[in-house]
Amino acid sequence: MDLSASSSASERVSRRAAIISRHLGEASGFGSPSLVLTPCISFLPPESSEKVSFDTRELRLLLDGHDVEARDWVFRLMEECSLFCPRRRGGNRVFVAPDYNQSMEQQREMTIRRIQFLLERGVFDGWLTGSGVDLEMRKLAMYECIGLYDHSLIVKLGVHFFLWGAAIQFFGTKRHHDKFLRESENYLIKGCFAMTELGHGSNVRGIETIATFDKNTQEFIINSPCESAQKYWIGGAAKHATHTIIFSQLHINGTSQGVHAFIGQIRDANGNIMPNLRIADCGHKIGLNGVDNGRIWFDNFRVPRENLLNSVADVLPDGQYVSAIKDPDQRFAAFLAPLTSGRVNIAVNAVYISKMALAIAVRYGLTRRAFSLSSNEPEVLLLDYPSHQRRLLPLIAKACAMSIAANNLKKIYVKRSPDTSKILHIYSSAYKATFTWQNMKTLQECREACGGQGLKTENRIGILKGEFDVQSTFEGDNNVLMQQVSKALLSEYISAQKKNQPFKGLGLEHMNSPCPVIPANLTSSALRSIEFQNDVFCLRERDLLIRYASEVYQYQQQGKSRETAVLLSYQLAEDLARAFTERTILQLLVEKVKSATGPLKDVLELLRSMYALICIEEDASFLRYGHLSLSNAAAVRKEVMKLCSNVRPHALALVNSFGIPDSFLSPIAFDWIEANSWTSSNSL
Amino acid sequence: MDLSASSSASERVSRRAAIISRHLGEASGFGSPSLVLTPCISFLPPESSEKVSFDTRELRLLLDGHDVEARDWVFRLMEECSLFCPRRRGGNRVFVAPDYNQSMEQQREMTIRRIQFLLERGVFDGWLTGSGVDLEMRKLAMYECIGLYDHSLIVKLGVHFFLWGAAIQFFGTKRHHDKFLRESENYLIKGCFAMTELGHGSNVRGIETIATFDKNTQEFIINSPCESAQKYWIGGAAKHATHTIIFSQLHINGTSQGVHAFIGQIRDANGNIMPNLRIADCGHKIGLNGVDNGRIWFDNFRVPRENLLNSVADVLPDGQYVSAIKDPDQRFAAFLAPLTSGRVNIAVNAVYISKMALAIAVRYGLTRRAFSLSSNEPEVLLLDYPSHQRRLLPLIAKACAMSIAANNLKKIYVKRSPDTSKILHIYSSAYKATFTWQNMKTLQECREACGGQGLKTENRIGILKGEFDVQSTFEGDNNVLMQQVSKALLSEYISAQKKNQPFKGLGLEHMNSPCPVIPANLTSSALRSIEFQNDVFCLRERDLLIRYASEVYQYQQQGKSRETAVLLSYQLAEDLARAFTERTILQLLVEKVKSATGPLKDVLELLRSMYALICIEEDASFLRYGHLSLSNAAAVRKEVMKLCSNVRPHALALVNSFGIPDSFLSPIAFDWIEANSWTSSNSL
Repeated sequence: MDLSASSSASERVSRRAAIISRHLGEASGFGSPSLVLTPCISFLPPESSEKVSFDTRELRLLLDGHDVEARDWVFRLMEECSLFCPRRRGGNRVFVAPDYNQSMEQQREMTIRRIQFLLERGVFDGWLTGSGVDLEMRKLAMYECIGLYDHSLIVKLGVHFFLWGAAIQFFGTKRHHDKFLRESENYLIKGCFAMTELGHGSNVRGIETIATFDKNTQEFIINSPCESAQKYWIGGAAKHATHTIIFSQLHINGTSQGVHAFIGQIRDANGNIMPNLRIADCGHKIGLNGVDNGRIWFDNFRVPRENLLNSVADVLPDGQYVSAIKDPDQRFAAFLAPLTSGRVNIAVNAVYISKMALAIAVRYGLTRRAFSLSSNEPEVLLLDYPSHQRRLLPLIAKACAMSIAANNLKKIYVKRSPDTSKILHIYSSAYKATFTWQNMKTLQECREACGGQGLKTENRIGILKGEFDVQSTFEGDNNVLMQQVSKALLSEYISAQKKNQPFKGLGLEHMNSPCPVIPANLTSSALRSIEFQNDVFCLRERDLLIRYASEVYQYQQQGKSRETAVLLSYQLAEDLARAFTERTILQLLVEKVKSATGPLKDVLELLRSMYALICIEEDASFLRYGHLSLSNAAAVRKEVMKLCSNVRPHALALVNSFGIPDSFLSPIAFDWIEANSWTSSNSL
Repeated sequence: MDLSASSSASERVSRRAAIISRHLGEASGFGSPSLVLTPCISFLPPESSEKVSFDTRELRLLLDGHDVEARDWVFRLMEECSLFCPRRRGGNRVFVAPDYNQSMEQQREMTIRRIQFLLERGVFDGWLTGSGVDLEMRKLAMYECIGLYDHSLIVKLGVHFFLWGAAIQFFGTKRHHDKFLRESENYLIKGCFAMTELGHGSNVRGIETIATFDKNTQEFIINSPCESAQKYWIGGAAKHATHTIIFSQLHINGTSQGVHAFIGQIRDANGNIMPNLRIADCGHKIGLNGVDNGRIWFDNFRVPRENLLNSVADVLPDGQYVSAIKDPDQRFAAFLAPLTSGRVNIAVNAVYISKMALAIAVRYGLTRRAFSLSSNEPEVLLLDYPSHQRRLLPLIAKACAMSIAANNLKKIYVKRSPDTSKILHIYSSAYKATFTWQNMKTLQECREACGGQGLKTENRIGILKGEFDVQSTFEGDNNVLMQQVSKALLSEYISAQKKNQPFKGLGLEHMNSPCPVIPANLTSSALRSIEFQNDVFCLRERDLLIRYASEVYQYQQQGKSRETAVLLSYQLAEDLARAFTERTILQLLVEKVKSATGPLKDVLELLRSMYALICIEEDASFLRYGHLSLSNAAAVRKEVMKLCSNVRPHALALVNSFGIPDSFLSPIAFDWIEANSWTSSNSL
C-alpha cells in the first residue's frame, strides 16, 4: 500500500481493492467465509439512506423563531475569517473551532482578536446605542450564533455588553449614557462587572467592599477591607478591561445604605493599572480560558461623585443620600436586574449547544456500526439499537421543546416592564437552571454515544462539557434559583389562600379547576393525547405545591422560622420547581404544535408526546406521590420505546432542522473515515 | 492598605484591623448596625469545630485495605520531586498537581519524565519480573496512588505494564518473557497495545487488520487493508513507544483463524519509525493530553514467526496452524484477558478519585458560608444546609462502600485462575461501569458544591471531570458491559431452570429461598436494619431477573432471535445489572461492618444504612415494580434526610480517613482566604 500524501482518492480506492483481492486470492480455494464476510467498512452519508418527510426549513424557522438571516450572516462571517481557525478535514470539508491546545494566554489573545473582527464587520452596531424590540431580538440571535463558535467569546462579549453595558443603561442616567455607551459599543472602552467577591458569590447582599463619600473632593473612596472582600471572577479584569462597574456597600455619614454600583476606570490608555488598585489573575480554569477572569483589591480607590450609577439612588454634593426607592430590599433587587439578561442568555445558549451536540451524535450514530446480530449479517448502525435510540432521541424532543420555551422567554425579556419583572425573574431562573442542567446531561450522553471520538477536541462535544460546565453555577447557582422558583410559587399559594382568590398568572390557573383524575389503565393513544399529558403535569404541580406548602407550614407549627422551614423542605421544593418548569414548557409546546400543519405537525406531535412521556419516566415524583398507577407507569415506559422507533426515521431531518452550519459540526458528523485517512492527517 | 508583597501575615492582620476600625470610627455616633454586623470573613480550620469520634487511621486501614505504607511511600516520592510541580499556596502549604495550562506536547514530555523518575526510585521493581499475590496487591496500591496525581501518568503506565506487559506475560511463552519482560520493567523497551481500530472499538472481533504467513522468510506480513483498519487510540504510539502488541486477524493458508496477537518493533533505538509503518497523532483531547495516543497503518509490515504470542495458538515453521483451544470463541476470549486487569484498575481508581473530590468539597463546605437565615445571624456553613448535606454525604457512603467492593475485586483478580474467569469478568465489568459512572456523578456534584472555585484547575475537582471522562467508554463501553452482566445472569437463570438446580455463585443463592416479603409500613429502625436492606435488595434483583428472562422469552416466542430479544429488553437489562451490582456491594459492606467494633462500628452502620437507602431512593425500580409501598418509599426519603444529619458530625473525620495527603488536595480544602491573598498570588 502506497501511503504517500500526494495520492488521490481514486488511487487509494484502487490500492485498497488490490490489497483485498490479493488477500482474497491467497484465500481462494480454501473458501474462508469469515474473510469474505468482513469487507472493509465504507462510509455512506446518512442522507443516502434516510428520508425527509417534512420541510426542514419550516422547522428551523419554528425552532430558531426569529432572525434567521442575521444568524446565517454571522455564521458566514465566522466561517470565512482565518481568525476562526478554519481547518480542512476530509475532502473539501472545512470546520471552524478554536484551538484548545493553546495556552490560557494564547486563547485570551485570540478571543479579543475575534471580537475586534466582529466589531469591524458591524456585528455590534446598535447593541448599546440602539433600542427597540426587533433590535434586541436580533442581538440575541447573533449572540446565540457566536456562542456556537466558542463560549469564551460570548462570555467576554456578555460581560461587556450585557453586564457592563446594561448596568450603564439601567442604573445610569443621561450623563453616564452620553459618556460611556457609544465608546463601549465601539469597544474603545472595555467594561467589566465587579460584583462577586472571594467571600460572597450568590449572596450579593453580603459583599464586603465599602464605599464612603469625601465631601471635600466630591469623590467616593472605595476599599477592600480584607482579603475575602477582593473582587473575584471579574471577566476582563485580568488583562483587557479599561473600566468596571464596582458593587459596594455604600456608607454615608456612617449609615449603611446597602449595595450600590459605581463606575471606575481600572486601566489607562496604555493598559497600565490605575493607582490604588491591585489586580491578580484567577488562573487556569477547566473552560473559558479565553476569558481573562481577574481579582481586584481597592485601596482608597477614588471615583468622582458622578460615577455613582444614580437612577435608583444618589448622593448629593453636600453628602446627602437620596433615593427614589425607600425600601432597601427593593433597591437591592433593582440593582440585580442586569443579571436577568445574563440568565436569559445562558438559558438560550444552553439549548443551542445541546442542539449542536445532538446533530453531531445523531449523524455519527447514522454512519457508525458496531457488532453483528449474527455472523452472516453486517454490523448494526448505532442508531438502530433500541438502547441508542433511547439515549439520544428523547434528548432531541427536549431540545426542541426547550427551544420553543427559550424563544418565549426572550420575548418576555425584550418586552420587559416593571409589571413583568416577577415573571421574568421566575421564568429566567427556572429555565436557566433547567436548560443548563439538561445541556450538561445532553453533552455527556452525546459524548458517550460517540465513544472515544467524543473525547477528541476536534469533535467538539467533549470540550463543550468543560466550556459550559460553569453555566450551572454562574449568574445564580441552579439549586438556589430553583428554590427561589418554589418560594415564589409558595407565595402565590399563600396569597391565594389568604385572599381566598383564584390563582392568576404563571400558568397556575389550572389550580382553580377541579383536580384532574387519571384513569388507572391508559391505552397507547390515551398516553399520546394532549389531555392526558396536560392533566398529569398539572396534577403533579398542584399536588406538589400543596404538599410543599403543607410541609413548610408543619415545620413552622413546630416552631421553626419560615426560612428554616423552607430549607428543611428542600426535597419538595426541588420536585415542585421541576414540575412547574416542565408543565410550563409542555404548554408552550402544545400551543406551537397546534398551530403547525401538514407532515411537520405529525412529527411535532411525536416530539410533544416524547417530551411529555420522557419527563414522566425520568421523574420518580409521579410514582412516589401516586399521580400515576403502576400499570400506567409501565405503559409510559413501553410507550417511550415505541416513540423512539417512531422518531428514529426523522432523526436526521430533525437535527438538520437545527440550522447549524456543517462547518460548526465536526469530522465525525460527516465522512469520518476520509477525515481520518492518512492523507487528511498530519504525518509525525 | 499597604498591599506590598513583602508584608508578613501579622502585618496584614493589623492593617486589616486598622481599616475596619477606621470605617467603624467614621460610623461612630451614627450607630450603623449593618456595618457592625458585617465583619470581614475569617477562616476557621474545620478541625477547630468538628469532633472526631472514631479512629480515622483504623477506617483508613479498612478502606485502603492493604499496603498503606507503600502508598505513603509513593505519595512522599511525588511530593518531594520538583517534576511533580509543587506549588506554595497560602502560608507554608504546598500542593502538587500537573500544570494543565501546558500544551499537549509539554504534558507528554512531563509525563515521561515523571515515569523516569519513579522508575529510578524503584517504584516499578518487580512489576513484570516478580510474581505473587502480595506483590500484585502492592503494585495495585501504588498504581492507585500515582493515579491520584494524574490520570495521564497511570494511563501511560497502564498501557505499558498492564496491557503490553501483561500481554507478554499471558499470551507469550518463555522466549517472549526472556526477551521482553526485564527490559520492559526497566522501561528500555516502551510498549503499547494496538488493538482498537478506527472502525472497531468495543467489537474487537470485527477488526480488519490482516496477518498472513510467509514460509520463505518465516515472517508474518501485517497489513491495514483500508483506512478503517488503521489502529486508533494507541497510547504511546504517537511519540514514545518502541514496541507494540498488534492485534490482527490471522489468515493461514487462506483460512481465517480469528484475532491473534503479535509483537512488533515500531521505533528504532533513535526513535525513528520503522519501515513499512505510518504513524499519526490522535490529536488534542479533553483529557489525558499527557498520553501520546497514536494511529498506525501497516503496509506489508513484517515480524518474525517467533513474535506471534503463542501461549494459546502457534504457527509452526512449515506454516501449520496449531492451537490448544479448538473453539475460536474461547480462543478469542483468552486474548481479551488482559483487558480485565484494565477494568480492575479503572474501577479501583475511579473510587479513589471520588474520595479525593469528596475530601475537597466536604472541607470547603465546612469553611465556606453563604446567606444568613436572619439579619442578626452569621451566614450559614454550606454543609449545615440540609440540601448541601443531601448532595455530598450520600456520596461519601457510596465511596466507602465501593472502596470495600474494590478491594474485594482486587483480591479476586490477584488470585485469578481459569475457574474464576467468569466471576472476574462479571464483577470487573459491573464495577468498572458502576464506579466510573458514580465517579463522574460525584465529581459533578462536588464541582457544583464548590461553586466557581470548583472550576479552577488548581482546585482539581473540575479538571478531573475531563481527565476521567474517558473511563466510561474505554476498556469496554459501560452500557455494553452492564448488558453483558445481565446476559450472564440470564444464562445462570436459564441454566438453573433447565437443570432444575439451585442457584450457586455470584451471590444468587438468595434466589433459592422463599421470596422476601416487605411489610407495608416500616419504622425508622426497621429501615435501618440489615434484614430490611438485604431483603429489599434481594427482592429487587430476583424480581428483575425473572422479569428480564420472561421478557426475552416473550420476544423469542414472537419469533425474534435471542440476540434481538436481548437488545429489545435493554430497559430491564439495565435495571437488573444495577440491582445485581448494588446487592453485591451491600453484602460486602454488611460483612465489613459486622467485623468492626467500637465507635467505628456505629459510624459504619450509619454509612451502611445511608448506602442502602440512597440506592433505594435513586432507583425508581423499587416503586415501578412495586417492591416498596408508597408509604415505605416516603419513609425512606425522610430517613435519608435524617441519616444526612446523623452523618454530618462525622463528615470531616470520614474524609480525613480517606488517607489522601493534604498536598494532593487543593487550596479550597484549607485556608482559601489566605491562599487567595495578594501575597500568595502572582502580581500581573
